Amino acid sequence: MLKLKIAWIGKTKNPAIQSLTEEYLQRLSHYAEVEGTSLKDEAALLALSKGISGRARHVLILLDGKGKQISSEEFAKLLSDHQDRNPAPLLFAVGPASGFAEKTRQAATLRLSLGSMTIAHELARVVLLEQIYRAFTILNRHPYHLAH
Amino acid sequence: MLKLKIAWIGKTKNPAIQSLTEEYLQRLSHYAEVEGTSLKDEAALLALSKGISGRARHVLILLDGKGKQISSEEFAKLLSDHQDRNPAPLLFAVGPASGFAEKTRQAATLRLSLGSMTIAHELARVVLLEQIYRAFTILNRHPYHLAH
Repeated sequence: MLKLKIAWIGKTKNPAIQSLTEEYLQRLSHYAEVEGTSLKDEAALLALSKGISGRARHVLILLDGKGKQISSEEFAKLLSDHQDRNPAPLLFAVGPASGFAEKTRQAATLRLSLGSMTIAHELARVVLLEQIYRAFTILNRHPYHLAH
Repeated sequence: MLKLKIAWIGKTKNPAIQSLTEEYLQRLSHYAEVEGTSLKDEAALLALSKGISGRARHVLILLDGKGKQISSEEFAKLLSDHQDRNPAPLLFAVGPASGFAEKTRQAATLRLSLGSMTIAHELARVVLLEQIYRAFTILNRHPYHLAH
């Protein structure tokens, strides 16, 4: 099973966002060893990514408005290719409200954009989780992708 | 004040989506005469759009994966231009899970895409609401856009 972490900066204030986060993490747990993590700041994200303090090094993928846009199908292929070739866990991170610092951007293997519009970071996290869930349903030929 | 309706097809099952929908409609009510409407089907959307049964004709904007992508700033300008030039209410519609029928597409003044990825329709509705809210904060120079 693919190992993946989804990290965000700061505590979640909105209970509906918290509820959707938990729902998608729960759904994802059928397909991957998944963990959602609230981090204090970007330094904590970089430490987690680099494998400091005895943790495994991660492949860091950032949500970034200036990143690359791919389709849901391409995203599914990206997850599948990673699973086939690389044993390192994937670490997806959603930035603070002000966006990621340049240092964090440079540490990332990939920067993904959800579209031309700027989405509130907590809502972007839910969209990312839905995309990861959708990707697994595509890879597993579950009908979700065509009916949602 | 700009008049706008946000319509979606079918009842909302997820309480967290319902809660976010209500939250953004409430926030939007500071800036516009806004109404959220759950419609039975696309025929009801077309009837509402065309102004059948004594209602005013609306300018229909559809969320559509094959539509046009614009930035949050361009979207704000679109709302502002409409407000200046056209007294007809705006009607935004989010499709059923299977997407809009060709007939509905042809009735639309504009088709907007939120990005290359396919987003679950209920979640897309929340993203749309956040974009409309963001647009009004941009037009009113409220700091939300730069801090979320």
